[in-house]
Amino acid sequence: MPAPETTSHRLVLPADANHHGTLYAGSLLRYALETAYATACRGVGPAANLMLRRVLALECRRSVPVGTLVEIRGVVLQTRQGYLAVGVVGMPMAGHTLPWMDGLLGFVQVDAAGLPVDLPQPVETAADAPLWQPLAARLEKLAAIRGATADWIAAGF
Amino acid sequence: MPAPETTSHRLVLPADANHHGTLYAGSLLRYALETAYATACRGVGPAANLMLRRVLALECRRSVPVGTLVEIRGVVLQTRQGYLAVGVVGMPMAGHTLPWMDGLLGFVQVDAAGLPVDLPQPVETAADAPLWQPLAARLEKLAAIRGATADWIAAGF
Amino acid sequence: MPAPETTSHRLVLPADANHHGTLYAGSLLRYALETAYATACRGVGPAANLMLRRVLALECRRSVPVGTLVEIRGVVLQTRQGYLAVGVVGMPMAGHTLPWMDGLLGFVQVDAAGLPVDLPQPVETAADAPLWQPLAARLEKLAAIRGATADWIAAGF
Amino acid sequence: MPAPETTSHRLVLPADANHHGTLYAGSLLRYALETAYATACRGVGPAANLMLRRVLALECRRSVPVGTLVEIRGVVLQTRQGYLAVGVVGMPMAGHTLPWMDGLLGFVQVDAAGLPVDLPQPVETAADAPLWQPLAARLEKLAAIRGATADWIAAGF
Amino acid sequence: MPAPETTSHRLVLPADANHHGTLYAGSLLRYALETAYATACRGVGPAANLMLRRVLALECRRSVPVGTLVEIRGVVLQTRQGYLAVGVVGMPMAGHTLPWMDGLLGFVQVDAAGLPVDLPQPVETAADAPLWQPLAARLEKLAAIRGATADWIAAGF
Amino acid sequence: MPAPETTSHRLVLPADANHHGTLYAGSLLRYALETAYATACRGVGPAANLMLRRVLALECRRSVPVGTLVEIRGVVLQTRQGYLAVGVVGMPMAGHTLPWMDGLLGFVQVDAAGLPVDLPQPVETAADAPLWQPLAARLEKLAAIRGATADWIAAGF
Repeated sequence: MPAPETTSHRLVLPADANHHGTLYAGSLLRYALETAYATACRGVGPAANLMLRRVLALECRRSVPVGTLVEIRGVVLQTRQGYLAVGVVGMPMAGHTLPWMDGLLGFVQVDAAGLPVDLPQPVETAADAPLWQPLAARLEKLAAIRGATADWIAAGF
Repeated sequence: MPAPETTSHRLVLPADANHHGTLYAGSLLRYALETAYATACRGVGPAANLMLRRVLALECRRSVPVGTLVEIRGVVLQTRQGYLAVGVVGMPMAGHTLPWMDGLLGFVQVDAAGLPVDLPQPVETAADAPLWQPLAARLEKLAAIRGATADWIAAGF
Repeated sequence: MPAPETTSHRLVLPADANHHGTLYAGSLLRYALETAYATACRGVGPAANLMLRRVLALECRRSVPVGTLVEIRGVVLQTRQGYLAVGVVGMPMAGHTLPWMDGLLGFVQVDAAGLPVDLPQPVETAADAPLWQPLAARLEKLAAIRGATADWIAAGF
Repeated sequence: MPAPETTSHRLVLPADANHHGTLYAGSLLRYALETAYATACRGVGPAANLMLRRVLALECRRSVPVGTLVEIRGVVLQTRQGYLAVGVVGMPMAGHTLPWMDGLLGFVQVDAAGLPVDLPQPVETAADAPLWQPLAARLEKLAAIRGATADWIAAGF
Repeated sequence: MPAPETTSHRLVLPADANHHGTLYAGSLLRYALETAYATACRGVGPAANLMLRRVLALECRRSVPVGTLVEIRGVVLQTRQGYLAVGVVGMPMAGHTLPWMDGLLGFVQVDAAGLPVDLPQPVETAADAPLWQPLAARLEKLAAIRGATADWIAAGF
Repeated sequence: MPAPETTSHRLVLPADANHHGTLYAGSLLRYALETAYATACRGVGPAANLMLRRVLALECRRSVPVGTLVEIRGVVLQTRQGYLAVGVVGMPMAGHTLPWMDGLLGFVQVDAAGLPVDLPQPVETAADAPLWQPLAARLEKLAAIRGATADWIAAGF
């Protein structure tokens, strides 16, 4: 059985718009985060205590006009120790065939003091459903490129 | 002369917080976007008409407590045709030596109808200042991995 | 086959809280509305152009602490001409057995000028799933009590 | 002497609008709540510690264009033990004769732990002013139909 | 008969707070503005089309804890041509004897193109009620000190 | 060496607009405050714990259209004991020669209990740069007119 998707719907209001009358990128990022966070929390279960660790990638493929009801789906694509990577897809709008947005976000499980800990239980990840193949493939390619803290130490702040 | 940095300051208020009393990821993403957008607009000049195309990478390295005044700096790291990649760094907080956040965001120049066009003039990119080396290096590594639209067509929505 | 439910998840942030550290009623009402609106739009289909006409009833049964990820489900319970009544339920939180919120909201379909029109196509309503029985029963009892515009004319503003 | 009304004024800004350029229902509900809450707090006095218990009914009678300064009035219509029912009316806009909104909201007094307690002192309720007759009449009709918790227990979550 | 006061009530929520748990200055300024704007609009009547021209003075006298229901009153203190000066007072909280805030704000009437025009009709200003004496006195003292545009021209941008 | 200016950039979004499609005064005041606050905090250094005490003056000279990227600069103009006065200027928009906004705001340093204390160290104030002359001159003229608490005591609340 495939891992359960988490689905959310949002009405794009003027308060979410840029001056072109389409979804403002700041609101788009928040929508993506909220769906990813809900997906991760549901995957981990009631003991989830998660914080965003990184955005691995996020593409804005199409402008979304004010007044649109958008649908965003998410699944857990990968886990290791106290970390999980979640994929989100802004489902194609009426009359389109491509997602208006897709992204990969990584979360860490933390304890009450905010320190990283292991996931409380194994988390089911997405099966090979076609919808998630493009993001799963990109996640694999990105695996080697994570921003190294060592680079910043070398930068000598 | 190095390209001019754009600097912004934000006070982290309870309205920006998560339930841990630290900067909520949704607000963090918005801060990063706003600094990156201002950086890109200033780089392009008065004819700038930019939209977020992608987040190439963004790392959240440290929790930021409510009440902190954060400083975020941005520079244009790369341009090609109608596209520019901007780096942003959340400058280390008092008593720390590493950025609390860093990111790479890509913007496209659009015309009045929202269609991509060339940049109106050449844009100066960051010189080799140490602060920007880690992001410049990551940008180069990420060059080959951009999410291909073809993958989504293959996914067959 | 029962009418499809619409599900949404929201993380309760300090920005949504009252001074007790629980979900502020103003945010709760907005969550309920957004789920009901998404439910109604999906029921009507791509030609939906809906506005809230009334809240028939809404109960706040339990305080929701900041940091909770809440789940709200909605279904269309009833339609007539250009109007539909939607039920929403805040699903019981971990360790509880009752909804923390439930409500009944009525929407009207409008044309481009904002005037009421018929629904563009028949809308499927909820089958007799146990979850929706309490709201369906209350909707029936409330049928006779809708606030009459005539009362206000008599009030003589 | 009639119970004192509480009056509030709000300017409808684009941030409060839907994509029709009129007051978004989510903002309308919040305006109604805030006026009702202020009304209830002033009725109960300095020892008020109130939470929304229910929306008994709320009607949206007319679209309100962005840029309008709306006036909302509220009074306490009924009290019993630790509970009060408040009526709110969106006063007719220039050139109209009917309220653009009216509603009935119920609040409970709680102690520091959030548990229901009696009102700290008797609360004056609205006299028979014509403005409040329609809502007072509807409140009476609704008395028998409150959503029973028993229904939800029977629903067997 | 004295000019009618405009009164507003606001519940201070965590979303309005600074990191001290009291009313954030940014929210305080907005409350003051909204009451002043409503006061000015009501004074001018249905043909009002006003924009803020200046804050003449505003004092924050006392911290307001989250959870407080504040009351702000406003009156028109002065008019000339297309301009009016409004006074606002944050009424003393329970147990206090001084306003927690007071301010003087100036508005101009504009036409559809946003250009200054005369007020559509005479506007009643506050009588000598004691509450408004301190602000009326300060307004008079400030009359000579308005920031001159000429200074900025001399600054040679 | 002149005291360092603090610069901030903000994109004016529809969420910040009034019904004229220009920057809403409530948002303008918040922008001015945030820049002034950041300026004051940076001037005082890491031990800063500041609260807004007053707006001495603020002029709105020009409407700012939605979609504009505004630049606001601030400097500390004056200090005494636990108080500092900050000037802010909304830098002229493309094609203009005057600031669209300028203001003078006063902050006090407070201890953990919110009581006024001395500044932790001397704070550098602006040199005689032409940009700051108009505000420095106005600050001097305003020195004698601060709103006296005694006036309110006389008002007899």
